[in-house]
Amino acid sequence: MEREHLSRQFDIELDAIRGKLLEMGGKVGLMIGNSILSLVERDTELAEHTIASDQEINRLEVEIDRDCLEVLALRQPAARDLRFITLALKTVTDLERIGDLSANISKRVRELNQEPPLQTVAGLTAMAQAASTMVQEALDAFVRGDELLARKVCADDRAVDSLYGLIQQELLAFMLGEPAIIARAIKITHISKCLERIAGHATNLAEMVIFMVKGKDIRHSTN
Amino acid sequence: MEREHLSRQFDIELDAIRGKLLEMGGKVGLMIGNSILSLVERDTELAEHTIASDQEINRLEVEIDRDCLEVLALRQPAARDLRFITLALKTVTDLERIGDLSANISKRVRELNQEPPLQTVAGLTAMAQAASTMVQEALDAFVRGDELLARKVCADDRAVDSLYGLIQQELLAFMLGEPAIIARAIKITHISKCLERIAGHATNLAEMVIFMVKGKDIRHSTN
Repeated sequence: MEREHLSRQFDIELDAIRGKLLEMGGKVGLMIGNSILSLVERDTELAEHTIASDQEINRLEVEIDRDCLEVLALRQPAARDLRFITLALKTVTDLERIGDLSANISKRVRELNQEPPLQTVAGLTAMAQAASTMVQEALDAFVRGDELLARKVCADDRAVDSLYGLIQQELLAFMLGEPAIIARAIKITHISKCLERIAGHATNLAEMVIFMVKGKDIRHSTN
Repeated sequence: MEREHLSRQFDIELDAIRGKLLEMGGKVGLMIGNSILSLVERDTELAEHTIASDQEINRLEVEIDRDCLEVLALRQPAARDLRFITLALKTVTDLERIGDLSANISKRVRELNQEPPLQTVAGLTAMAQAASTMVQEALDAFVRGDELLARKVCADDRAVDSLYGLIQQELLAFMLGEPAIIARAIKITHISKCLERIAGHATNLAEMVIFMVKGKDIRHSTN
């Protein structure tokens, strides 16, 4: 009876960690979308709001780390639960970096919005949407232990890489044709690089999910 | 007697993890240095070697993760040992990304070495040295639990950020004066961004060390 009670309590704690990870994922997803929206709409207030919301992400990181450490210390989980907790520890780091990257994008946007508008770079919104979807799906795959969805995320990373390559080419042609816009175009280059890194974090997460589900490490297996 | 034996065995396992982390840190430190040396010396063979050695880093990541998981499952460490293991799990992720970033630098160098040399960017070697030192010191601080050294690493990050800012300014002036070199200058921009991110990983690690030593989370405390 006592043991059953403990086990239920443990499940509640794991669910709470799952819930906080999803909350953190939802918030960074919103940050990614808003960071690019504030560029397209030239909405500096939205950029400021995105920069400020990174503090909330940082708070969640510290909180989830502490929760995981407590569960490890008090419950001594085994097998699958242990893998879940150790990967939750790595996941919060990725989510926190995604928050940082979205805030970095917003800082570049804040600068760009004070200068004359650049011809819109077509692929940027598509890239942001793809990266944001990857983050959500990687996190869904994590909390549900869904290996197929995790594999989809890994495959989608290639599409984001292609978009990134195209944008770089476009910006380079742009700069060669009109050197006066170089400084602004380099900021757009940084923004697209941030999106590419966000997709990379989602892919790391998806690879770890496959590890969790199968108990087998597929990272670097194609090297 | 049995308990004492187990405890000695546990210490041996923790020491082995410490040793592998230091080995991994030594290897990524070498990769950072060689990636920039291969640019300065226009040594494409060294760049290729650096790209190839990333596989060794990936192998160590998988191995150390597995070791940590085993210790968590079998020894159920408490308090300080538990914090050490959970931070080791986060540390390998940072070291693996540093390896990736050094390989990325080397890939840009491989391309640059096939084009006419650019005027040397003065701050790049200094930036690589500073970033590499930060990684080594952060890791030393980790395995020795040296809070003061960890704080030095956090402070050094500001110097690397300044160097990064200066290099960006220099490259921008360069491109405005001679648009024909834009494509090459953008590659150098990417290289300096990789070094800035390597320093950022070292700083993350140092902040975690302070957490481990004090049992107190200083991350984001200045936000």
